Amino acid sequence: MKLGFIGLGVMGRPMAQHLLAVGHELHVYARRAEAARPLVDAGARACASPAEVAAASEVVITMVTNGPDVEQVALGEAGLIHGARPGMVLVDMGTIPPETARRVAAALAEKGVDMIDAPVSGGEAGAKNATLAIMAGGKAEVLERVRPLLETLGKTLVHIGPIGAGQVAKACNQLIMVAAIEAAAEAMLLAQCAGADPEKVRQALAGGSAGSRVMDIFAARMTARDFRAGVEARLHHKDFGILLGEAATLGAPLPVAAQIWQQLNALMAQGWAREDTSALLKVLESASR
Amino acid sequence: MKLGFIGLGVMGRPMAQHLLAVGHELHVYARRAEAARPLVDAGARACASPAEVAAASEVVITMVTNGPDVEQVALGEAGLIHGARPGMVLVDMGTIPPETARRVAAALAEKGVDMIDAPVSGGEAGAKNATLAIMAGGKAEVLERVRPLLETLGKTLVHIGPIGAGQVAKACNQLIMVAAIEAAAEAMLLAQCAGADPEKVRQALAGGSAGSRVMDIFAARMTARDFRAGVEARLHHKDFGILLGEAATLGAPLPVAAQIWQQLNALMAQGWAREDTSALLKVLESASR
Repeated sequence: MKLGFIGLGVMGRPMAQHLLAVGHELHVYARRAEAARPLVDAGARACASPAEVAAASEVVITMVTNGPDVEQVALGEAGLIHGARPGMVLVDMGTIPPETARRVAAALAEKGVDMIDAPVSGGEAGAKNATLAIMAGGKAEVLERVRPLLETLGKTLVHIGPIGAGQVAKACNQLIMVAAIEAAAEAMLLAQCAGADPEKVRQALAGGSAGSRVMDIFAARMTARDFRAGVEARLHHKDFGILLGEAATLGAPLPVAAQIWQQLNALMAQGWAREDTSALLKVLESASR
Repeated sequence: MKLGFIGLGVMGRPMAQHLLAVGHELHVYARRAEAARPLVDAGARACASPAEVAAASEVVITMVTNGPDVEQVALGEAGLIHGARPGMVLVDMGTIPPETARRVAAALAEKGVDMIDAPVSGGEAGAKNATLAIMAGGKAEVLERVRPLLETLGKTLVHIGPIGAGQVAKACNQLIMVAAIEAAAEAMLLAQCAGADPEKVRQALAGGSAGSRVMDIFAARMTARDFRAGVEARLHHKDFGILLGEAATLGAPLPVAAQIWQQLNALMAQGWAREDTSALLKVLESASR
């Protein structure tokens, strides 16, 4: 299939390589030309703009960092919309506000271009190993057209609902994961303050009713005092902005998510944006010194 | 071994039966005599008081609901302390404040009686199947003496630290588990408000970075709208009182746990004390109508 791929960062590059490896014709664009180099060396064609990518592609995948970037790539000057033919599909796989996904989809629809929002969980390892969990929103028949592509990139693909619903599911995912990290941090702080060995507490809990991937991974980083990312906390901070923005738009009361957002704000204020989100433990420690 | 067992409720009865089944001589006491009947029928001896249980036992296990009950059974009129010989060990397996465990242990120590706090996670099923996770506090050499008994009752046993440390670990366990339930409830509310199918969101998330036993069990109760316990929410409410009380004693700031406690208060105020803790979703729904 003739594919476009825009956003060749830590996640996007290995994803694009998987698509190239299974034989698709790949057209790529990167703001910094050198970001596209490994893919061009592997057989992809470099384009001068998103519009040029769109003109050559049946399906374009975007994997850029935030909502404004997606709007720029899709609708801006030399954006996809200026090169796309009717029937093209944009699959946006980054994490952006559901509202932005809906707005971009509506603008593209006027030109006969379809859109799927398909954010992922699983991080860099999931991208490299093609084991991402993909949460998709959009029309079922459009999703069916791109399903083989997505199944090349992930191990699970769930169609959640209409456009934006994939982003809603991703916001839910981030809420649950970061809440688990914060809860682990509070538990580890309590254990420390009580004179109990946090690592023994973690081990005692990990196999029981409090067990989770977060206990296995993030809580272990806390007890090892190793706060290197992992997942850079600034990305979870960004995601909580999306989450609470959507909650405000919908009028959905999320009291605990709102409290966690403040803890992430405190983490950012401490200058730990590029540390792992397990540094939420250090935020609590700062407040108890 | 000559054992005592006090507290023959939903958890205690199957636990006592396991000990009887492996051949221990069991002396039991229950405030309501009929609670002891199934065990007496199976070969246990009914005693008229905790003191009488203590007089006949090398080790006494208690599994009663809260801190005041443990104090009454151990130190009250006709309590264990009045029948115990030096060298007896009390193993308290209920969930009580760490501070109460330390205070009871100190009083017993004056009579030469040792104490282990060994709260459990795993619930009724864990008690019946002898698959409890046991978190123990107390002296290592005392724990070694009762280890075979505890291993009869559980699948994991971790020595966390000195007396009270088991209760600290249990408080951590409850913090992490109920935080996961509340986070799942907020995620399910957001999905509902956004028009996405909560069960599809749950399924999409369960296998990924947000995956946990809570997502498998409690979030599934939410999307099935089946709020029957399970774990009665009043018990988690009680446990959060212990958790936040310990945090206050230690001066440990637990902002998210404190917020969750308020959600549990709201749940209690709605009259849902005996429903499952997944009813936290209904608390959010009540606030968004």
